[in-house]
Amino acid sequence: MHRFALIGAGRIGRIHAANLAALPGATLACVADTDAAAASALAEKFGARVAEPVAAIADESIDALLIASSTDTHATFIEAGAGAGKAIFCEKPLDLDLARAARCLAVAERAGVVLRLGFNRRYDPSFARIRAEITAGRIGALATLSITSRDPSPPPVEYIRRSGGLFRDMMIHDFDMARWLLGEEPVQVYARGACFVDAAIGAAGDVDTAVALLTTGSGRLCQITNSRRCAFGYDQRIEAFGELGMLRADNATATRVEHAHADGFVTEPALPFFLERYADAYRLELADFLTALSGGAEQLATGRDGLRALALADAAQRSHESGQPVAVS
Amino acid sequence: MHRFALIGAGRIGRIHAANLAALPGATLACVADTDAAAASALAEKFGARVAEPVAAIADESIDALLIASSTDTHATFIEAGAGAGKAIFCEKPLDLDLARAARCLAVAERAGVVLRLGFNRRYDPSFARIRAEITAGRIGALATLSITSRDPSPPPVEYIRRSGGLFRDMMIHDFDMARWLLGEEPVQVYARGACFVDAAIGAAGDVDTAVALLTTGSGRLCQITNSRRCAFGYDQRIEAFGELGMLRADNATATRVEHAHADGFVTEPALPFFLERYADAYRLELADFLTALSGGAEQLATGRDGLRALALADAAQRSHESGQPVAVS
Amino acid sequence: MHRFALIGAGRIGRIHAANLAALPGATLACVADTDAAAASALAEKFGARVAEPVAAIADESIDALLIASSTDTHATFIEAGAGAGKAIFCEKPLDLDLARAARCLAVAERAGVVLRLGFNRRYDPSFARIRAEITAGRIGALATLSITSRDPSPPPVEYIRRSGGLFRDMMIHDFDMARWLLGEEPVQVYARGACFVDAAIGAAGDVDTAVALLTTGSGRLCQITNSRRCAFGYDQRIEAFGELGMLRADNATATRVEHAHADGFVTEPALPFFLERYADAYRLELADFLTALSGGAEQLATGRDGLRALALADAAQRSHESGQPVAVS
Amino acid sequence: MHRFALIGAGRIGRIHAANLAALPGATLACVADTDAAAASALAEKFGARVAEPVAAIADESIDALLIASSTDTHATFIEAGAGAGKAIFCEKPLDLDLARAARCLAVAERAGVVLRLGFNRRYDPSFARIRAEITAGRIGALATLSITSRDPSPPPVEYIRRSGGLFRDMMIHDFDMARWLLGEEPVQVYARGACFVDAAIGAAGDVDTAVALLTTGSGRLCQITNSRRCAFGYDQRIEAFGELGMLRADNATATRVEHAHADGFVTEPALPFFLERYADAYRLELADFLTALSGGAEQLATGRDGLRALALADAAQRSHESGQPVAVS
Repeated sequence: MHRFALIGAGRIGRIHAANLAALPGATLACVADTDAAAASALAEKFGARVAEPVAAIADESIDALLIASSTDTHATFIEAGAGAGKAIFCEKPLDLDLARAARCLAVAERAGVVLRLGFNRRYDPSFARIRAEITAGRIGALATLSITSRDPSPPPVEYIRRSGGLFRDMMIHDFDMARWLLGEEPVQVYARGACFVDAAIGAAGDVDTAVALLTTGSGRLCQITNSRRCAFGYDQRIEAFGELGMLRADNATATRVEHAHADGFVTEPALPFFLERYADAYRLELADFLTALSGGAEQLATGRDGLRALALADAAQRSHESGQPVAVS
Repeated sequence: MHRFALIGAGRIGRIHAANLAALPGATLACVADTDAAAASALAEKFGARVAEPVAAIADESIDALLIASSTDTHATFIEAGAGAGKAIFCEKPLDLDLARAARCLAVAERAGVVLRLGFNRRYDPSFARIRAEITAGRIGALATLSITSRDPSPPPVEYIRRSGGLFRDMMIHDFDMARWLLGEEPVQVYARGACFVDAAIGAAGDVDTAVALLTTGSGRLCQITNSRRCAFGYDQRIEAFGELGMLRADNATATRVEHAHADGFVTEPALPFFLERYADAYRLELADFLTALSGGAEQLATGRDGLRALALADAAQRSHESGQPVAVS
Repeated sequence: MHRFALIGAGRIGRIHAANLAALPGATLACVADTDAAAASALAEKFGARVAEPVAAIADESIDALLIASSTDTHATFIEAGAGAGKAIFCEKPLDLDLARAARCLAVAERAGVVLRLGFNRRYDPSFARIRAEITAGRIGALATLSITSRDPSPPPVEYIRRSGGLFRDMMIHDFDMARWLLGEEPVQVYARGACFVDAAIGAAGDVDTAVALLTTGSGRLCQITNSRRCAFGYDQRIEAFGELGMLRADNATATRVEHAHADGFVTEPALPFFLERYADAYRLELADFLTALSGGAEQLATGRDGLRALALADAAQRSHESGQPVAVS
Repeated sequence: MHRFALIGAGRIGRIHAANLAALPGATLACVADTDAAAASALAEKFGARVAEPVAAIADESIDALLIASSTDTHATFIEAGAGAGKAIFCEKPLDLDLARAARCLAVAERAGVVLRLGFNRRYDPSFARIRAEITAGRIGALATLSITSRDPSPPPVEYIRRSGGLFRDMMIHDFDMARWLLGEEPVQVYARGACFVDAAIGAAGDVDTAVALLTTGSGRLCQITNSRRCAFGYDQRIEAFGELGMLRADNATATRVEHAHADGFVTEPALPFFLERYADAYRLELADFLTALSGGAEQLATGRDGLRALALADAAQRSHESGQPVAVS
């Protein structure tokens, strides 16, 4: 039985807590949060105790940390956890600053602990199937990849200001997905952004609409398109095209009902946001983290994957600012 | 070059005239209609001359008759054409009265002329593909068949009164389709009708909504559903289910555009009515009639097929009236 | 907190136990099964104790019974539970014998206990949405209904022999769905069956392929088609057609991935069977039973609904045997 | 009645001839081709005479030229036709050389003749509907556009060598479509190409796989992806995304039949190539050219549109070669 400490009792923390409760072989032992009320409510619900993060990390009865606190605390908690020999599952990103993220990763690697990043989309059943089919050679050699990722509505500008910008906050998921599906490292990024959704986002120095074009060493091409607004739900789609065909994951909907009337055939909008669309993925990624703890083969992103995705986000940001393609080493 | 006389310059006659004009190996030589203006307009458009039906049928330079006049004239024109040795393509049905239809067919058979009925749906590319796949064994032994056929809106009650009723006027197409796809003769019909669309149809002694259940000799089961009203266009679908799978033909639409918005994903309504949905079918059935004239293999309904479909329609009408299943010999 | 006794630790019992465990406000207190090993394994997993059914029903600390034992025990356990004043959730059917079911229902009604039947499909999100949309008038007055229900492969003949036959064992779900969606009672049933899947099923006196046609008092028409075999998974679809349009629920699939290759565009087969297709439905129906226990409005089938569905199944069986439509009072 | 001379009796010329024959108000008067046999076969079929191009252009009885000859002859024939005061419909491009194309266009403009380019995709019913819906404001302000265009298999390398390269030969259609749908001029192009399909194409100095990213003055972003090979047919799709939703045109198929079997639900591949996919478009564009001759409003690409598309293709080629984004004036 693996005993977990959860650091962060916010929206994502609560999802992880519920998923952990349903997993055989794992126990939520304690919950930490700067919001004491949130921590104790969650702890009570799942029969855990409340603890300070430092104490939780030091606690020898704890095997694993689930870090779902604010981004600026990730690196510190990872380093502390690594020092205490804990296995660590951390929400992305390691840190918004690439150098800081690299130092943190080096600490974890020296400590030899398991460190996995929460790139939940790798566990979406549709995207996971695309990866499996590519790997099985079902479309032959992959040539181009197209990733569409649109949020239903923009976050508050206050959030935008602390987010590191669209490329590091939002497109970073797509960079991880691109690396995971392309089977090769992108060596160059070209990105363009615009502000069509909310002028306040532009005033805060960010974009709300962006596209990127990645090129790998062998010439594979990946297009990514992002928007902070989408009228028809949380638009999450992927197309992988190769010599023998194409794999295409369309949006998920709440039901399979079609309403036919005088204006046409209508199916439901896409699921509203990540909690609905990636409910299965959150559950499966935690189960796979347990597999990792047992030394089994898993698909989770490692700390190093997190660093690579962040490097691509940085390159995209620089490309957007300079108007030039940016090489990624 | 086969020279045709067209009898009937109404809606269907005009379609046949245009299709004939585009067919190599066929010429529209003359047009006959009780509406002289309609006949001469159509004749002029396609370089044909106007003729009385009797004269057209007697004309030795004419090889083939295209009968698209009102239903009550079909049997008479077929018999006259058969007497003159013409090949005959006639819109369905032979006649609304089964005995009259049988006599007419006997005349044509004794004369040894080619007689084909315009069950145009056999030429719909989707339905024809279902037939081809069944025949090729792609779903193994066929077990059940389901046919959906709904008109966009009811015809005038005046038409209903002369139509022979829904089973003979509308469901007769589905009876032909059922026979064609089942690969066996139905031996029993059970039918139920109701009046949900227009009370005047009920007052005229007919129904506007109906279902039928056919059973073949080996026990295959076919469900048919009809409505004289359909909010989303001309609903024309078929499902054939067998031991190895299912073939399903969905409705055709004018474009493949999907509009995603806050209420969902919307595609266009079904094509509005038979002129649009079966445009290809009308073209292909006439081409196949030319094949028949050359002695080639074709899929057209014969006079005998027309008689069988009418017998099923009669049985359905009797079943609806009696509330009992009716055997078909 | 409602304390439950689960009677029956088989496949369905285990599903209910897991769903109960995740429901706030409910506790699985004890498990009974004639297979002691199954009972104790399940009890241990969810922290319950093992009990004899009689003892469990008599136990004053138990509020509610979850009956998932073999069909022939349902009526006895319901009557015992009613005598002990327990709320009862019972898998369908009440009993295979209509008179026995009616007596059992009368006992429960006299006792005034909550009695709900597990017609799980009412909780399928797609079917529930069809019902909600019909009720909201989205397709206007309902005219016809079409229900398709096909199992992936036939059960053992041994099961068939004890099942009461396809109409009572399998189509009973569709009869409940028909009543629930039609908004009126069927007054007549016509049914036809055949044996296309397994000759041994025919030898056991049953059919493996069947269709039924229901007529309601106002003339609404409902077609049902069943098969004990389906090559492409568990085929569960509904179409409701009315004056303003149609609602159509298509099959659910494990992912939304489409594979395009030289032979076409391929999506996955339907989910394999009821455990996968109705996973959500099983969870939601139990939550709604809790709502019922609190006196809230729910959609569960009552004992009386169970009796009506059984009466329709009996009528269908008689119709199949006699070849005649059968009136249902 | 407009009298046409067709210059070029190859594959596209034959399509135009047949479409012209079916158009009221137009007559194919003469056919010219360097291949005399091809010219006379086509002339005979449609009752036209054979002529030398120079004579046809000089012929005072001819109103309009239909230029479907090899690309390197377009500019010369346009200039000659303009000199003779003919209305001109010319297959794209004006010329592979931008300066030459510009001179030719200037000649036509000075002469004041109607000059239209055959960007047939503007007449595809699905793409035309996307344009109409954007224009009608159905998705609000357009933000991003995505165009997918893949040929089923590469042309002979011999063709590649004379083609001007993928960007001028193939992606030029997408550049026209982008301009037409974006409603603004692209001001910058970034393009990347690769050779995944046929090494001989690379040896000939061209690419067979390419993506481009266009940016308009207001910041709208357009992604284009091309491949000279596509296993599942002629892949022609567009997605337009805006503040209120998305318009998406999927591929067309020959039928609407779905085959369900143990491996899933299978629909047909995309239509094989442009003759099938754009059959309607070829017909409609010629009808619209007749509208243009009568001074009516049409959607045809003008000579100036042709020049703009060519300028974008040139920019894409330079971007691909330099690795840098290229501004377009």
